[in-house]
Amino acid sequence: MKRILVSLCLLLAAAALSAQVKEDFKPATTNQPNHRYPMVNSERVVRAQVSAPGAHSVKLDIGGVKYEMTNDGNGVWTGDSAPQDEGFHYYQLEIDGASVPDPGSLYYYGASRWGSGIDVPAADEDFYTLKNVPQGEVREVYYYSSVTGSMRHCYIYTPAEYKKNNDKKYPVLYLQHGGGEDEHGWPQQGRTGIIMDNLIAAGKAVPFIIVMDNGSDTYGPNNPRPERPAMGGPRPQGAPQGGQRPPQGQPGPRPQGGQRPQGGNPFAGMNFAGAFQSILEKDLIPMVEANYRVYTDGAHRAMAGLSMGGMQTHSIALANPKLFSWIGIFSGGVFSVDEVAQTPGFRENNKLIFISFGSRELENRIGGAADPKPITEELGKTGMNTVFYVSPGTAHEWQSWRRALYQFAQRLFK
Amino acid sequence: MKRILVSLCLLLAAAALSAQVKEDFKPATTNQPNHRYPMVNSERVVRAQVSAPGAHSVKLDIGGVKYEMTNDGNGVWTGDSAPQDEGFHYYQLEIDGASVPDPGSLYYYGASRWGSGIDVPAADEDFYTLKNVPQGEVREVYYYSSVTGSMRHCYIYTPAEYKKNNDKKYPVLYLQHGGGEDEHGWPQQGRTGIIMDNLIAAGKAVPFIIVMDNGSDTYGPNNPRPERPAMGGPRPQGAPQGGQRPPQGQPGPRPQGGQRPQGGNPFAGMNFAGAFQSILEKDLIPMVEANYRVYTDGAHRAMAGLSMGGMQTHSIALANPKLFSWIGIFSGGVFSVDEVAQTPGFRENNKLIFISFGSRELENRIGGAADPKPITEELGKTGMNTVFYVSPGTAHEWQSWRRALYQFAQRLFK
Repeated sequence: MKRILVSLCLLLAAAALSAQVKEDFKPATTNQPNHRYPMVNSERVVRAQVSAPGAHSVKLDIGGVKYEMTNDGNGVWTGDSAPQDEGFHYYQLEIDGASVPDPGSLYYYGASRWGSGIDVPAADEDFYTLKNVPQGEVREVYYYSSVTGSMRHCYIYTPAEYKKNNDKKYPVLYLQHGGGEDEHGWPQQGRTGIIMDNLIAAGKAVPFIIVMDNGSDTYGPNNPRPERPAMGGPRPQGAPQGGQRPPQGQPGPRPQGGQRPQGGNPFAGMNFAGAFQSILEKDLIPMVEANYRVYTDGAHRAMAGLSMGGMQTHSIALANPKLFSWIGIFSGGVFSVDEVAQTPGFRENNKLIFISFGSRELENRIGGAADPKPITEELGKTGMNTVFYVSPGTAHEWQSWRRALYQFAQRLFK
Repeated sequence: MKRILVSLCLLLAAAALSAQVKEDFKPATTNQPNHRYPMVNSERVVRAQVSAPGAHSVKLDIGGVKYEMTNDGNGVWTGDSAPQDEGFHYYQLEIDGASVPDPGSLYYYGASRWGSGIDVPAADEDFYTLKNVPQGEVREVYYYSSVTGSMRHCYIYTPAEYKKNNDKKYPVLYLQHGGGEDEHGWPQQGRTGIIMDNLIAAGKAVPFIIVMDNGSDTYGPNNPRPERPAMGGPRPQGAPQGGQRPPQGQPGPRPQGGQRPQGGNPFAGMNFAGAFQSILEKDLIPMVEANYRVYTDGAHRAMAGLSMGGMQTHSIALANPKLFSWIGIFSGGVFSVDEVAQTPGFRENNKLIFISFGSRELENRIGGAADPKPITEELGKTGMNTVFYVSPGTAHEWQSWRRALYQFAQRLFK
């Protein structure tokens, strides 16, 4: 009997080890026109394919893992990842040691480069699916900055009714990206316009304007980039020709991409906004107020950000508590009871503190880091309007932040 | 004496052959943030660099030529092109046979793919340089199409004063891309918003709105893509998730990318607009007129396009002469005296026919193809307002079309 059981176990183990990946692959929704690869299946496995006839090593590099791809003998390489979290992921191919974009995918700016991104199926993807509802607009806007002494670049979402109601004013959300990203993050991989149009059409959100700027690049003739050991060669001079990016620059002091504040507040007292706070106060907000039909008081202004953008939001909110009454920090830290108590005017002017994380970020907290949930609940007990939202099954990644925006937007300006 | 002369000739020849490329390279203005490569020099040579430690062959593929790049021994490959024409060029790297985007450049949609593009210096680049002048907006707009039965995607430029003059109506230019391109072409590599803001600020152009749609992709549930031998594998189902592209599809009958009509009119009688004309008439123009403060008569409507977009413009203008009074065809053909004479209503409704080519396109006309200049002048002699513009030193490429727009825009609606 024992031998039969042992054999049975061995058989089951063998079966599990050789379990086939589910062959229901479809082209990802984020592919270039007319490209079948990369594909995704119902288990959220990513399958990439590329023609590299002369290569001897090709890898799919996604989620921090490099997966060997296999040559079919005719120079076409194919390979599968492990199942990925729901939603959007940056990735690349590695061809004989060269880290390059996948020719089959659309490109997004994040992880400090324009490169491949892919959306894998999500159970809740409906909220960011393009629908035939009244459509707003995402506008590309250049403006002069006195702080940098150069032209800057941002995106501004206006809701569908904005074009029609020539006398109505709107509240504004200033929404910031994370480290290694820029002003393209929220409109493109964040799908902000689509999420908002759907929410407003469903009557779940008040119509408001969203301003998405670049919180990393704060440099220009008036605020030169500090000299640092160059990678060699000349640096571009002057304002670059418009197009897809604002003037070059490095962010102010900030944690490297990948790091993020843990549950407690290890960065208490540090101001991560740097020159961006000046740009916001002196250039961006005045430009918005001069050119769009918006309310100009803190009660009708919100600020939120993801990761580094959340840390900037936190710094700016404490430095200038009358500026924004509605605050959101997505995977970017917390407000403590002490911080609020020590900031004159903060309590009186605040209407919402929204703190969010992906569930996996909370599970993977560095040992010793404080749990953000009780910190936020403690703040709530002092009478502030606090919300603690956890995105199920996601980590420090865009699905957490799409969901955070979805939740946060429904609570704004009400 | 003869021997001295021969020796001198040999010396000069040797010097010419070993002439050094001018080492005044600078990062291209179209590089990704903080990337020094690719670089360009004052002779418009492009120098690319990529890390590919395991590769044995790396090439720079630009302007139809593949240039071998050289390994420095540490896996960093560098290589120079021959001098390029002024302005913008699509290009890629080839790493062990894999055609991939250059990780250093920004990405543009053209040549049927999102991939690398580069701007090389141009003597006249000032007209498309971002300046601190009153700024318009390029708006990203989704709209429902009854013709395709799906959501479509376009860009709409509004001039700086549009936001302020709530009672003023504006004329509209419908501006179309070429084969292998899409609605991103004119806003991005075309730099349409910047060119127009500069022109309007200088008082050289009347403020007007520009609509930039996708003339290739006309497919959806109501207009299914014809079945063709698949590259294998499933095709994406349903409307793709918004983002950077509209619903998938193949264009109607059209010449392959790279081909273009020669001076004569070899495509006379053929309608290249296909379903795009229906989309324009039934969905796009009505959407623009319902949502923007625009004039709704042909005298205040213009249409122009480059290459395939020019051919579509030509077809639509002849099929529906009251729709657009101002017509521009950039590297896309001509109108003949006969065509105009045979189209009732065309002469009476037309205010401008603008025909343009790059000088190199004219020089390289396939033998026997008619010269577009006399054809256009002949049309002008019949009393029509014709303009024939030649972009100096450029071929079938974006610098020809930026310049064409610059010239054409100044003549519109006056």
